[in-house]
This record gives sequence, structure tokens and C-alpha cells, in this order.
Amino acid sequence: MKLTTQEITNLVGGKLQCAPDIIITGAAGITEASPSDISFIANPKYTAQLASTQAGAVLVAETMTGLENRPVILVKNPHLAFATVLHAIAAEMPPLIEPGIHPSALVAAAAAIGKDVAIGPYVIIEKGAIIGDNTRILAHTYIGRNARIGAGCLLYPLVTIRENVSLGCNVIIHSGTVIGSDGFGFVPGRDGHLKVPQIGTVEIANDVEIGANAAIDRATTGKTIIGQGTKIDNLVHIAHNVHIGKHCFITAQVGFAGSGTLGNFVSIGGQCGIGGHLTVEDGVSIAARSGVIGDIAAGQMVSGYPARPHKEEMRMQALMHRLPELYTKIKKLLREDDSTAS
Amino acid sequence: MKLTTQEITNLVGGKLQCAPDIIITGAAGITEASPSDISFIANPKYTAQLASTQAGAVLVAETMTGLENRPVILVKNPHLAFATVLHAIAAEMPPLIEPGIHPSALVAAAAAIGKDVAIGPYVIIEKGAIIGDNTRILAHTYIGRNARIGAGCLLYPLVTIRENVSLGCNVIIHSGTVIGSDGFGFVPGRDGHLKVPQIGTVEIANDVEIGANAAIDRATTGKTIIGQGTKIDNLVHIAHNVHIGKHCFITAQVGFAGSGTLGNFVSIGGQCGIGGHLTVEDGVSIAARSGVIGDIAAGQMVSGYPARPHKEEMRMQALMHRLPELYTKIKKLLREDDSTAS
Amino acid sequence: MKLTTQEITNLVGGKLQCAPDIIITGAAGITEASPSDISFIANPKYTAQLASTQAGAVLVAETMTGLENRPVILVKNPHLAFATVLHAIAAEMPPLIEPGIHPSALVAAAAAIGKDVAIGPYVIIEKGAIIGDNTRILAHTYIGRNARIGAGCLLYPLVTIRENVSLGCNVIIHSGTVIGSDGFGFVPGRDGHLKVPQIGTVEIANDVEIGANAAIDRATTGKTIIGQGTKIDNLVHIAHNVHIGKHCFITAQVGFAGSGTLGNFVSIGGQCGIGGHLTVEDGVSIAARSGVIGDIAAGQMVSGYPARPHKEEMRMQALMHRLPELYTKIKKLLREDDSTAS
Repeated sequence: MKLTTQEITNLVGGKLQCAPDIIITGAAGITEASPSDISFIANPKYTAQLASTQAGAVLVAETMTGLENRPVILVKNPHLAFATVLHAIAAEMPPLIEPGIHPSALVAAAAAIGKDVAIGPYVIIEKGAIIGDNTRILAHTYIGRNARIGAGCLLYPLVTIRENVSLGCNVIIHSGTVIGSDGFGFVPGRDGHLKVPQIGTVEIANDVEIGANAAIDRATTGKTIIGQGTKIDNLVHIAHNVHIGKHCFITAQVGFAGSGTLGNFVSIGGQCGIGGHLTVEDGVSIAARSGVIGDIAAGQMVSGYPARPHKEEMRMQALMHRLPELYTKIKKLLREDDSTAS
Repeated sequence: MKLTTQEITNLVGGKLQCAPDIIITGAAGITEASPSDISFIANPKYTAQLASTQAGAVLVAETMTGLENRPVILVKNPHLAFATVLHAIAAEMPPLIEPGIHPSALVAAAAAIGKDVAIGPYVIIEKGAIIGDNTRILAHTYIGRNARIGAGCLLYPLVTIRENVSLGCNVIIHSGTVIGSDGFGFVPGRDGHLKVPQIGTVEIANDVEIGANAAIDRATTGKTIIGQGTKIDNLVHIAHNVHIGKHCFITAQVGFAGSGTLGNFVSIGGQCGIGGHLTVEDGVSIAARSGVIGDIAAGQMVSGYPARPHKEEMRMQALMHRLPELYTKIKKLLREDDSTAS
Repeated sequence: MKLTTQEITNLVGGKLQCAPDIIITGAAGITEASPSDISFIANPKYTAQLASTQAGAVLVAETMTGLENRPVILVKNPHLAFATVLHAIAAEMPPLIEPGIHPSALVAAAAAIGKDVAIGPYVIIEKGAIIGDNTRILAHTYIGRNARIGAGCLLYPLVTIRENVSLGCNVIIHSGTVIGSDGFGFVPGRDGHLKVPQIGTVEIANDVEIGANAAIDRATTGKTIIGQGTKIDNLVHIAHNVHIGKHCFITAQVGFAGSGTLGNFVSIGGQCGIGGHLTVEDGVSIAARSGVIGDIAAGQMVSGYPARPHKEEMRMQALMHRLPELYTKIKKLLREDDSTAS
């Protein structure tokens, strides 16, 4: 990338507050940026850095004040504007793989491969699999029998897609992730646990992204579902028959027990646990490390374990910190009580 | 599968309470089932669904009442009966792999391969490894030097079995799982951490199943042991020298510190942590998200962090929720205390 | 290994308190050791085992008393001494791989391979990658474009090193681990989440070891950094732009949100969560299962969620256990209060 500050301002639809002809060739965080980098401030925590940053220009919110003599470009949403610049930089990077099938890839004759598909070395595509146009499948990735991968997908190296699993279009799956492993279903008995065959599958809608080393189990019967546009971070576990809605945001190391239902635009912080057979409605926000053990109504913000409305949890946490003080008061009352009783 | 309701009743040893000649060709959850599906109710939460289900027939507990005019088959254990039907369906599915060694598999001349073994594409089997009869090893899986895999095992794609690890018979390992990675052993010092070589191994008994992307470390010396029939879910971490008994049930994202001992039939809910050098006796049940930091006697049910008897934890949780009320009372008492004092 | 107790004493720099000519051929834990094994006691919990152990000799702290007639070797640091013996045993084990490039490995012509490098079967090394001298890369591991691997590294089977990632010298990475997956960066909006391209990378310094199935994300811009000598256990998640210092010790299943900074010699117990955009200073110790949501000053020991000084947390925990007793007292006070009021 090589753009002037004016060209970047045009690209992001902003308002220039510095020289229009500074040459920008890269992007960086506010503390690491050099004079040829564009940076941004989305988190107010970093505002003070504006005074000392070496950045050639900084994308800041148009509502920000005290910016006299700072090399800024005012925008509605600095995070979005920065992402726009990063897309411009990324577009110039060499592609990870070119269309074509690597000679070492094992593609079953009975698989259907779309146009301009890129299949990397040692990729395995089993019979009956369908790969959509422009999809890229990198090294060592395994596509099981009758799996369906939509158009424009990107599967990084060492991904496992088990048999019959279905991915929509523009899905991104990072390395090490497994889609369609057996659900953890057993009938307990005196002699041990009898396996319940997991004959269902997984259906992942368009525009989903799933991080590294995640595991999404197939359904016992029917489908485990990940809705359109949902983003899932590294090391997340999703059990059999979970149904996740559209545009959810699920941070790293979250785990779902079986048969839960999530609405749309649900946001879940890292390391949460979501119990089985429950419903989390649209727009719910679950703070990091919460444990959800019951249904949650639309739009609520919850935290803690068991998860409850965030304000209640905060109040309880505050009171817990005051327990030492409380005990002291109680002791005092009890002493006085004794003295009045005597 | 194509069975009449009468044939299914015979298969599961139940009592027919609907037409004997309904044709069943599939199985499904109670809300998704169609007229050609068999379903089941094991969780009373779903009993109300009996009124509206489209299922051709439903397996229900023989103790259930109010079933007049419902298309049910009465059984002792509906979950078990449903599993039996799923086994019948699964038996008709095409096998994931046929016996034989794929030409791209690299099997060391000095490995011993049993009868009717199936070895998939790009599988690597190092020298000295022993593979039992009828075992299936799917694509890209790695079997290290001198590893021993029993008969009838199923290793899914992209599994890593490190050198000298031993698996019993009928063991199932899901994709991405690593057995025999080094234990996390270091001697701390002023200049950093000195690695303790992990020269032990892992021994997995018969009938164990391990989910996707789990990690089971080899012992420092001796063995990390997983007992017969134990089932382990996705993303579980088991540290060096842990000894797990028979028929334990370990849910997703549980982590074990080193050198712990578990008895038989121990059940652990998701995301628990089990401390090092401690003993959990037979039949203990540990609720999800508990943190165990001491020994637990046989048969106890524990929860919380630190884990304690479940009833105590529940009582403490209930009281914590009443803290706001308690503080209000205390304030009142203190005010009155002041007024009586004056 | 075949050493006399005298030779082992010389090797570890200890003081012999048993016969000098016992032949030791192996090493084992105190309860499993046979007469030809050396063992050790580092954890006082196991001291009583000295009376019954079958070990040929036991490495114990020179400060230990009551050792009359016990076959011990006195040393400053038994754990370190035992590690020294294990290094001697490990040095005699056959190497996992010999130098050379396996014919099935796909090494790009435009990759630079050092001296005495060992590259296993089905390894893929993309163009522009640099592999240092004596480095060993085991089966199925993937080294992305322009990645740099230092000298003396050991990458176990099925590791993924993404493009542009840099590893120092003597780095060990266990199976299934992914280095350089995209950071979890999205701009939220009404229509869903817009991906923020992750154009940064990961830089891992010398002497780092990373366990199995961990995931370390590349930076949005700039670098995610793991400092020299830091050890990271299985299933750890490290988000984009995290900077970890030297000689940290990060136990299994810990998760880091983005852009945090860790000092040197920080120790983190299992299953902790470390929030984003915060600073943990040198020498901090974080107990297992803590959730850190703010900066922590150098040298502190913290625990709980939210993590606070360990002593405070312990006091609060103790008081929480006394809540039932507290409620009983309050009730009594309220009753008396009512009676005095009447």
C-alpha cells in the first residue's frame, strides 16, 4: 500500500485534519506506529497516546475534542475505518494459494469441484464431497465423504471436516479445527456407558468464521447449526444439537453443552459455559467467564455463575467484598446485645 | 432402516401402544421428527411435546402416564431404547473406510499390522508400532514409534499418537486429539525453567472414547493411565501421571493437573479443574465448572470452587443471593443500635 | 542408562547415604519405583513413602531429617537432581528422527534449509521459509510462507506454523498447536461483524516450549510476542497482540484476551483468564482459575475472579463459608430486636 493521507481520507469517508500529502505505507497500533503508518484510536484508554505517537496519521472519532495540531483523520467509526485500510493492505498481499489442484492432493473422482477452486498439498477430499467455486482449501485439510463446502470458503491447513457436514459460502475455518466430531452421547449403566451413535450432522451457514482448534460436534440426530455471520474464536467447544443463531460473537474457550438454542446477535465473552437444553434469546450479552444454567430473555446482559442480570451480580460482588466489614459490625452488635441482655 | 413400529418394539423389548404397522425409516428429536421417524422422551422437560410431535412413534418410559391416544412404545429406559434404534441405523451406513492400506500411507516395514486393518491416505505408522485386527486409522493420522494400538480401534483423521503410547481394544479417538505429548514438567530457577524430560508414556485401556482436540500428556516416568470404558469429551487436558479409573465420564474442557488419581465411575461436568496430587474416589460426581483442590471421598457429589459437598455449596449460593437483604437488615439494626445507645 | 548409586551421586553433585554400588537402570515415582530405579521426593506429601518405597535410591533434600537407614542421596534440589538423571536417560533414547529430508516432504525450492535439519514425512515447507541448523520437524507439520524457524527447534507432528511467523532457537512445539491463526478482530455492526484483516504476525523467542493443541493468534498489526524461555502448556489460547515476557510459566487451558502485556517470570495457574489491554508486571503469581480484569503490580500473588491479592481472596472465601452461621446470628439479633421493640 502506498497512499497519501488525502487518499486514505477519501477511502474511509473521513475529514482530514492534517497535511494531505503524507505518504502512508503501513498500519500499526498507536504505540508502535512509525511516520509512514496509519493508526487509530477506538479505545479511549489510548487517547493520551495521541501526544506521543509517531504515526503519520491517526483515525479518530469525529466526536473527539482537543485534537489541535494532531495529525488526525476524523471518522464516524475509527475501528471500521482502520479495518477498511487493513482490507486495502491485505488485498495487496500475495494470495496464500493459487487456483488449481496440487498434484499431491487426493481428490476422489466422485467429488464435485467448482470453478477456480484452490486445493493445497496433501489435501484429501472424499467421494461425494462438493466444493463450491473459488473456495480455497489449504495443506493437509481433510474433507469427509459427502461434505458440502460452499463458494468462496477458506479452510486453513490441518482442518478436519467430517462426513456429511455442510458449510455455506464465504466460511473461514482456521487450522486444527474439527467440524462434525461425534456428540458426547452415552447411556449410563452399571457396566459402563453405552455409546449413542451420532448419526446427525453439522450445518454451518454463510459468512461464519471459526478460529483454531475449535471442536463442533455433529448432532445425535438432525443437525448442529451455526447461523449466518456468526464468529467463533479459538478452542471453543460446541456440543451436539446446539443451534446458534445469526451474527453471534463467541469468544475463545467457551463451551456449550448439548441441545441449547442461541438467538441472533448473542455475544459471549471468553471461557463461558452454556448449559444444555436451554434458550438464550436475541441480543443477549454474556460477560466473560459466566456460567449459564437457565434460559435468558432477549436483550439481557448477564454475568457470574450462575449467570444472572449483570447489575445484580455486580451488587452481590460488591457486597462480598464488604463481608469482612460486615462481620466486624455483626460482632460489635453481638457484644452489645450481650451487654444489654445482661 | 425400514422397520414397522412392531419390529422396533421387538428390537427394543418394549410394549406397543400404537398401530403396529407404521413404517419407520429414521430417528429424530421430538420436535424435529416427521411421521416416518421414531423419537424418544428421556428428559421430562419434553413431555409436553408429545401432544404436538409429528413422530411416527415415540419411545417413552413405561412409568409415564397420560399417554392415551399417543403413538408411544413403552420401554424401561427410553434413552437406551433410542440408542438401540440408532445402532440399527448406524449399522446400515456405509463404512468410513474399507480394510486395506491406502497406497499413500507410510507404514514402516518394522511395524506389525493385524488382520483386516484399514489404513487411510497419508497415514504414517512408524517402526515398531503394532496395530491390532480390524482397527481403522483414518487419513493423516500419525502413529509414533513403538506405539501399540489394540484390535477394533477407530482413529479419526488427524490424530497424533506419540511414541510408545499404548491403546487397548475398541478405543475411539476423535480428530485433532494428541496422546502422549510431553508432560508440563520444569524445574524453576533464577535463569528460567529447566525442562524435565518426560520419559514415561500413556496407557489407554479397552473401550475408551476420547473426543476432538483433547490432549493427554505422557508421564514424567511411568504412565498416565485412562481406565477401561472411560469416556472423555472434546478439548479435555490430562496432565502427566494422572491415573483415571474405569467407566469415568469426563465432559468437555475439563483440565487435570499432574499426578491426580480418579477412582471408577467418577463423573465430571464440563470445564472443571482437578488439582494435582489428589484422590477422587469411586462414584464421585463433580458438577460442571467446579474446581477440585482436595481429596474427595467415595460417592460424594461436589460443586463450586473450591469444590465442597453440593448441598453446602447450594446453601452458600442461596445465602450469597440474599446478601443485599442481609446488608439492609444490618443497617437497620445498626441504626436502632445507635438510637437505643443514645 | 546403567549407573551405580555412586555415579549418580557424582552426576547430581550430592552426598551418598547408601551403598555406592547399587545398579540403577531407570527412574520412577516413589510409589512405582523398583530396586533398579532411582526416585526422588520434592513434595513433602510423599515423605512417608520413604519407609515403603522399593526404589534402589531416592534423591532427597539435604535439609531432610529422619533418614537413618534409608537409601538416599542428599542434594540441594531433588527435583533438579531427578531432572538431571532423566536427561541422562533421555540422551540414550533413540532420536525421534534422523537428519535428512524425507522423500515425501514438500520443501519449496525457495525455502532455505540449514545444516543437519531433519524433516519428516509429509511435512510441507512453503516458499520463503527459513529453517535453522539442527532443527527437527516431524510428520505432517506445516510451515507457512516466509516463516522463520531458528536452530535446534523441535516441532512435533501435525503442528501448523502460519505464514510470516517467526520462531527463535531451541523452541519446542507440541502436536496440534497452531501458531499464527488470525486474531479474533471484527467491527460490530447492525448487519453483523466485519472482519478486521489480521496482517500482523507472531514472534516467539528462544527456548520457548508450547504444549499440544494450543492456539496463538497473529497480531492485527505488529506482533504477538512470546518472550525467551517462556513455557506454555496444552490448550492455551493467546489472542492477537498479546506480549508475554521472559521465563513465564503458563499452565494448561489459560486464555488471554487481546493486547495484554505480561512481564517476566509471571506464573499463571491452569484455566485462568487474562483480560484484554492490561498489564501484569514482573514476578506476578496468578493462582489457578483466576480471572484477571485489571493491571497487577510486580511481585503480587493474586487469586479469584475478579483476581485480587491472594490473602484478601482467602479471607473473603473463609467468610463466605461462614455465611450460614452469620445468617443465624442475624436472625437471632432481629428476633431480640423485635422483642425489645415490643
